[in-house]
Amino acid sequence: MPQIKALLFDVFGTVVDWRTGVSSAAIKLQKKYKIQFDSAEFADSWRDEYQPAMEEVRSGRRKFIILDELHRENLSKIKKRYHLDLITKEDEDKLIKSWHQLPAWPDSPEGLKRLKKKFIIASQSNGNVALIVNMAKHSNLPWDMVLGAEVVRHYKPTPESYKVACNMLGLNANECMMVAAHNSDLKAARNQGLKTAFVLREKEHGPLQTTDLKPDSEWDYVCTDFIDLAQKLQNSE
Amino acid sequence: MPQIKALLFDVFGTVVDWRTGVSSAAIKLQKKYKIQFDSAEFADSWRDEYQPAMEEVRSGRRKFIILDELHRENLSKIKKRYHLDLITKEDEDKLIKSWHQLPAWPDSPEGLKRLKKKFIIASQSNGNVALIVNMAKHSNLPWDMVLGAEVVRHYKPTPESYKVACNMLGLNANECMMVAAHNSDLKAARNQGLKTAFVLREKEHGPLQTTDLKPDSEWDYVCTDFIDLAQKLQNSE
Repeated sequence: MPQIKALLFDVFGTVVDWRTGVSSAAIKLQKKYKIQFDSAEFADSWRDEYQPAMEEVRSGRRKFIILDELHRENLSKIKKRYHLDLITKEDEDKLIKSWHQLPAWPDSPEGLKRLKKKFIIASQSNGNVALIVNMAKHSNLPWDMVLGAEVVRHYKPTPESYKVACNMLGLNANECMMVAAHNSDLKAARNQGLKTAFVLREKEHGPLQTTDLKPDSEWDYVCTDFIDLAQKLQNSE
Repeated sequence: MPQIKALLFDVFGTVVDWRTGVSSAAIKLQKKYKIQFDSAEFADSWRDEYQPAMEEVRSGRRKFIILDELHRENLSKIKKRYHLDLITKEDEDKLIKSWHQLPAWPDSPEGLKRLKKKFIIASQSNGNVALIVNMAKHSNLPWDMVLGAEVVRHYKPTPESYKVACNMLGLNANECMMVAAHNSDLKAARNQGLKTAFVLREKEHGPLQTTDLKPDSEWDYVCTDFIDLAQKLQNSE
């Protein structure tokens, strides 16, 4: 097996807990505007618009647009349902910016710090640069590099999104490993020749999660969190 | 004055000592191949090809190509003069990669670490992503983000190079400050609305340096090194 030199990380769900973060931002607005709804369901509804919106770009029906803008458009599709059509423009901007301040899973900062000692660690997320950079400052994520959709100009899981990322690091695909909590992301990365590591995040979608509770293929590494991944990579030297 | 949120850094000459780094790599080859030449003059000659090569891209006469490739082409123009046409392909690759391992000026790692506590710190160099990421690992440069030519798709000092960089960080130009040892870089950045900080690097071009020995305009900050810049920015709060 060629030496792994860089780890590319999915971010939403793999490194940070988007559902809790967005839900918390919604709760603040509920209090301010005295409105009621299930804040976790709201986060899910907003996230449900994510794939179809990106598909417009991936398919070529629409030119590239950053995720902040897709988040704004997606919110406009659901906000009436949650009485969020009544909030000020300023509060809407804050709600969209809540994606820039998502909380890390407890092991993420320390795990990434350990992995960084031996590997290039880069985010390879569909989030735009400002979103990922602000999140890194907020949640102490020590990226060597922010790659991802805005930099490589392709949304995952298109083949180009992985190929351009490896290329920008000056590495062959098999010198890079995709780290994700989502089997689909790993499958697409492996198709381009990258190594793969599955990280279990069993509460990404809340207590009743039914997806990605186990690896559905023989990924190169399967781990419980980033500390576990760091140990497994250390041991495989 | 609007609050500064991000510092964008020129790299070659401002953060790292390219002349010493390239010269050291050449000295290794002199020993191996028993050839003689002035290694600092060689570094200068290679660097002299830098601006004209980029100008081909900036002018639109040539499509975008990363600096690693320009370094390769530029080396081919001068290598015979220094008997470096006799070295193996592997050693030529190593010589080109010496730009990925340039030594930092002594204050750079600690200065950037201090500045990072308060600001987003991003490289905004003409170096490509792999070059800057590898250099950061090698010389302990804790970038939040590697911007620069390959990411923004424009070589400095075009207006777009600065504008796209600020835009990717989700910031207005006047929330960003360009930090450079070169008056020309600062002038171009200020023309796009960025704040400016001049850092004196009086030995970038060796002991007989004649350029950029002083600020030639009223930049927002003038400092002796990055520690000094961190202190001045702390005091201006």
